[in-house]
Amino acid sequence: MDGRVLVPWEQNRANAPAGLRVDVYDGDAPPPGDLSDVVLYVLPYGRRHAADLLPRMPRLRAAQLLTAGYEHVLDVLPDGAALHNGRGLHDASTAEHALALILAAQRELPRWADDQRRRVWRPHYTRSLADARVLIVGYGSIGAAIEDRLRPFEAEAVRVARRPRPDQEVHGIADLHGLLPEADIVVVVAPHTPETTGLIGATELALLRDDALVVNVGRGPVLDTGALLAEKGRIRAALDVTDPEPLPADHPLWTAPGVFVTPHVAGGSATFYPRARRFVDEQLRRWAAGEPLANPVRLDTVGG
Amino acid sequence: MDGRVLVPWEQNRANAPAGLRVDVYDGDAPPPGDLSDVVLYVLPYGRRHAADLLPRMPRLRAAQLLTAGYEHVLDVLPDGAALHNGRGLHDASTAEHALALILAAQRELPRWADDQRRRVWRPHYTRSLADARVLIVGYGSIGAAIEDRLRPFEAEAVRVARRPRPDQEVHGIADLHGLLPEADIVVVVAPHTPETTGLIGATELALLRDDALVVNVGRGPVLDTGALLAEKGRIRAALDVTDPEPLPADHPLWTAPGVFVTPHVAGGSATFYPRARRFVDEQLRRWAAGEPLANPVRLDTVGG
Repeated sequence: MDGRVLVPWEQNRANAPAGLRVDVYDGDAPPPGDLSDVVLYVLPYGRRHAADLLPRMPRLRAAQLLTAGYEHVLDVLPDGAALHNGRGLHDASTAEHALALILAAQRELPRWADDQRRRVWRPHYTRSLADARVLIVGYGSIGAAIEDRLRPFEAEAVRVARRPRPDQEVHGIADLHGLLPEADIVVVVAPHTPETTGLIGATELALLRDDALVVNVGRGPVLDTGALLAEKGRIRAALDVTDPEPLPADHPLWTAPGVFVTPHVAGGSATFYPRARRFVDEQLRRWAAGEPLANPVRLDTVGG
Repeated sequence: MDGRVLVPWEQNRANAPAGLRVDVYDGDAPPPGDLSDVVLYVLPYGRRHAADLLPRMPRLRAAQLLTAGYEHVLDVLPDGAALHNGRGLHDASTAEHALALILAAQRELPRWADDQRRRVWRPHYTRSLADARVLIVGYGSIGAAIEDRLRPFEAEAVRVARRPRPDQEVHGIADLHGLLPEADIVVVVAPHTPETTGLIGATELALLRDDALVVNVGRGPVLDTGALLAEKGRIRAALDVTDPEPLPADHPLWTAPGVFVTPHVAGGSATFYPRARRFVDEQLRRWAAGEPLANPVRLDTVGG
């Protein structure tokens, strides 16, 4: 418990357990001069240069990131320091945006926005989310958060992940082709790996019903952009991530029929900060109590 | 059990209990010639002329509407016939649209739709529904359906109805002014009555925080349009119903800052038909079993 703790928010210092020496470094003010006594460093969110301080912390025992990604600190992490990431902190935001996209597509919100711009009142009957069968492809913590939000809408969720987990009713990816023809909505939350590139391609889209909806809040390359465009509106899509990204002004996806695009904003909403501050409070409590910190990154499985 | 039953869908005839004489009248095909033996008539949905058949049914014991409103049949309902309405059949659709509007406003979907039209990729941080306090004004069956859908988003619902129901944690309307300053989102689902006209007016809007969101899926006149416009964007709004309605092309609401309009489509979605068909199946089951039908309209309390 000796040594100093650096946290990004004043709230965390105020809430810290007695006995911890805690200073605030928010990534904007100049960093403290001497960092040789820092043992736990919670890096400020959205400040890439925050990682530059790591080499000045020879006694560091743990670095806590507030992002899920951690590759950017591997080269500067002091020897012997553990690494913890912010996985889960963006789940609520991403799941919320996934529901926003699903409902927008089913209830035709982009059309009503367009009618509002033209000042025309032209109601018509729409699809709904109720009674829809929703395939969640890449079922993990975000997929579970999406499922929680789908349930009261009287929609049915079907879980698909890389490996089958029969005890949790999760289908393996080998079942995907059999499940697609029965789906009304496919939500892609899979991470981008060599295995998932083009996971939803021409073959998969062809298996979908006319007017089925594909929602992508995972990573752009998991859905084959060319294959989606080749469907020429037979399949609808609501995409928070695209390939390429950002989408250049002359890209055909902007104007493809039945496609709604948001610019990779699913994870970036007001849900993050209160959850991140609470998470840091809780990590400090664990640290002071000598308990293992949550969210360890298993560095032995990273790289070589 | 003697006499004939008229239903709007073939499914209802196919599922009818044995012993019932059931014919299909869908409101499009010419009606059956002789209606003198009809004892139960389920009026086809969305066909105003369906009520014109009622005076030709002297032995009618019950008329079943699939709308919540029933005023249009009171003058032509045969003496002695009971009236049943379709309340509840639109709850899922309306609640779903309320959530679509809330999420669209919090996650700025109309802005992204506009950026898509301009082909610009310009992400920024948005509000969220998580952690929001949502006041449901006019808490009844639709309000409860909205609350069910809000819960997994980690939002807090506060219930307000005409009369307080402390055992159900429902505030009376007298508490409204005390609750407004603490609300992030106000969802109006109150019906339009002389009491609710302008219920959310200048005084109420002034009590709201800057950037609070008002959602109206109830009736247009419950929210004072002039008072909303006078806020000049300090309050955001997502409105499925407006006053006047339809909104004329030159109405300032179309272009008011922070206002999103959909053209009274909350109740009109694909949720309705499967629920309505199941409801009619269930009413026929009750009828054949000699049980009271659901959803009676208490005609003794209607009019004089």
